[in-house]
Amino acid sequence: MTLAVERQADDVATIMREVGRRARKASRTLALASREAKDVALVAAGRRLRETEAAVLAANAADVAAAKAAGVAGSFIDRLTLTHARIAAVAEGLETVAGLADPVGETIASWTRPNGLRIDRVRTPLGVVGVIYESRPNVTADAGALCLKAGNAAILRGGADSFRSSAAIHAALVEGLDEAGLPTDAVQLVPTRDRAAVGAMLSGLDGNVDVIVPRGGKGLVARVQQEARVPVFAHLEGNCHVYVAANADLEMARSIVLNAKMRRTGVCGAAETLLVDRAVAASHLGPLIAALIEAGCDVRGDAEAQLADQRVTPATEEDWRTEYLDAIIAVKVVDGIDAAISHVETYGSHHTDAIVTADERLAKKFLAEVDSAIVLHNASTQFADGGEFGFGAEIGIATGRMHARGPVGVEQLTSFNYRVHGTGQTRP
Amino acid sequence: MTLAVERQADDVATIMREVGRRARKASRTLALASREAKDVALVAAGRRLRETEAAVLAANAADVAAAKAAGVAGSFIDRLTLTHARIAAVAEGLETVAGLADPVGETIASWTRPNGLRIDRVRTPLGVVGVIYESRPNVTADAGALCLKAGNAAILRGGADSFRSSAAIHAALVEGLDEAGLPTDAVQLVPTRDRAAVGAMLSGLDGNVDVIVPRGGKGLVARVQQEARVPVFAHLEGNCHVYVAANADLEMARSIVLNAKMRRTGVCGAAETLLVDRAVAASHLGPLIAALIEAGCDVRGDAEAQLADQRVTPATEEDWRTEYLDAIIAVKVVDGIDAAISHVETYGSHHTDAIVTADERLAKKFLAEVDSAIVLHNASTQFADGGEFGFGAEIGIATGRMHARGPVGVEQLTSFNYRVHGTGQTRP
Repeated sequence: MTLAVERQADDVATIMREVGRRARKASRTLALASREAKDVALVAAGRRLRETEAAVLAANAADVAAAKAAGVAGSFIDRLTLTHARIAAVAEGLETVAGLADPVGETIASWTRPNGLRIDRVRTPLGVVGVIYESRPNVTADAGALCLKAGNAAILRGGADSFRSSAAIHAALVEGLDEAGLPTDAVQLVPTRDRAAVGAMLSGLDGNVDVIVPRGGKGLVARVQQEARVPVFAHLEGNCHVYVAANADLEMARSIVLNAKMRRTGVCGAAETLLVDRAVAASHLGPLIAALIEAGCDVRGDAEAQLADQRVTPATEEDWRTEYLDAIIAVKVVDGIDAAISHVETYGSHHTDAIVTADERLAKKFLAEVDSAIVLHNASTQFADGGEFGFGAEIGIATGRMHARGPVGVEQLTSFNYRVHGTGQTRP
Repeated sequence: MTLAVERQADDVATIMREVGRRARKASRTLALASREAKDVALVAAGRRLRETEAAVLAANAADVAAAKAAGVAGSFIDRLTLTHARIAAVAEGLETVAGLADPVGETIASWTRPNGLRIDRVRTPLGVVGVIYESRPNVTADAGALCLKAGNAAILRGGADSFRSSAAIHAALVEGLDEAGLPTDAVQLVPTRDRAAVGAMLSGLDGNVDVIVPRGGKGLVARVQQEARVPVFAHLEGNCHVYVAANADLEMARSIVLNAKMRRTGVCGAAETLLVDRAVAASHLGPLIAALIEAGCDVRGDAEAQLADQRVTPATEEDWRTEYLDAIIAVKVVDGIDAAISHVETYGSHHTDAIVTADERLAKKFLAEVDSAIVLHNASTQFADGGEFGFGAEIGIATGRMHARGPVGVEQLTSFNYRVHGTGQTRP
């Protein structure tokens, strides 16, 4: 296994310009690569990853030791750490992506004009995708694989603390590409830890980056959105709501609220605020709060929530805006569906919001009027996930309205063009 | 008719911030407006435009007189000038857009997951669209209508020389909105000629502009792409090619080349370079050049083109890169389809390119490998037009790969979200 060697950062701009140039060149070949070649590369990369597990674990151990010595937080170490099981999951992920349909070349629409011209709208790659992520080495494989499958060249820039681990995983991807006869520059790992490399990517590398995908916390995404001179598929945060509306079945509401909040509290689709309609507050508010507290959740609420259960502490204005990513929820009683929608639109992040009700009319209104990437009726917000949507894998959940919205899978990493078939037509 | 009065530019930033705030507010109402209300507004605007023709022509006469006094070019005056026929065409355009299907709320895709969740992907508006255009007053109505139909609020900023004309047309749009009970802020005309207003729009007006559409020449579009802090649907230029390949029928080639170049030379889909394959050069090159020259076209060519016809002047490297928008064409002989594709990729602008051949294999390769928004087989490049594609109307032709590509009609001015229908599902 040949590991990428960290290059000295004395001229990051020069290094990055070369990375961009090579990515653009590789992207031209990759755009025309067969499904078979791309899948061979992905499967071979998975095999190489399993074969080189010892080296990957050793590289990761060095990263983890350095991070611990630097005194970083436990949750950070957890995300950084690779194990046999995690490497197996990453390798399986590569095979899953290989198994997905190839989006490139798919005819999305086709119609014939009165003059006989047949117009096909056909999926094409985006070109070069820059992925900027934190110290989660698995993203190296996940993001690289999705970009590759969609026919894009990828420039991956992981967190500096995971450099050795990412390089070890990247080596397997490169060997897979090589085995498939594809350009090894199709998936490049930025060969320096210097943070200036991020700035260079955000500048677009002389037009050689077509889109940036940031994967990480608020600080990273905000920086990317602030500085990027190229389009960004970002999800800023997931301040998700569950609205228990009139005619909500209590058992269903309880099960959805508990799942939305507590299944995993650290994911972007976790609920952060519970809105209970006044119409069902008398019967539902107390039991829902009790269920959350019994499940280990800290509940902050408005005056009525505090009245319903003495264990509820007061919520401040700030709570309605907060993505806790923790076992904490804010609870509020709202006067009808318009007040609920208004709350979601005022404080939410346009990520994922759910309504629980047996009233189809209310559900229809909520789903039509809440302007979020994902809106659900009688289902948990934790379904906000590319895998759960059937996309096979995802690179993140986009909350913007441009190009990609919601789970970003292989299809969202493509563009399209129009292919027009004539028989000599000229325009009058 | 109430004309927008130009506001003093002593505080453009304040004025524009208010414009943005009002657009965002209106966009929320417009996003939920019925098809009927939007169509009533468009039809009423068309009627008002016809009714107020005298006032529109008077406002336009004042613009034209001022522009002539300032000594601007004749082609500029032509684009600025309104006539009875042009106003009638603008009014008809409003009615055409009213007749288009409403994209908002359309279910683009729908599938059911193994757990029973039904996922609908539904079209939604983009939000607030900023349109920056030159002194073509008709764009005020065309762009405003498309944005409105797609449920977006529009902020329109036309060229300073067309301010009075644009204001007169805008007044009709506002009256149409008012008649339909829609917020009149749904289509705003920037109330100052100060160029600082453009900069303010490009900054995004505190997050109140979701996308910028520049319509105009190279200078305008380049400035917008350079400065915009929000996504841009731009077409930089149309350096379009016709490639006459092996097995091209001479008659078909002649008809397509003449149409692609000469039907209208000032449109972005006009051909600027003719590539003739060596396989047919002996038989086709001379006749094609002669036909162009006889049609009044100035032909610049490589050595072989010059040999084929003495009237051909030498082409320089610069010619391959030039969008003439005039009766001039550059001609080159290429060695096979790979050389042709390579030329198009090197010098083209990813707008519209065509191949003429009876060989399906060559056509398939060209259409798959040329990375342009529109690629055609045996048809004229001048079909690069939203109307010709069946989109009803367009706001421009996008050459980027993000979100919109090719003709930007009402559908391209929308986003989508996911609406998930459950029966109490929680995620395991």
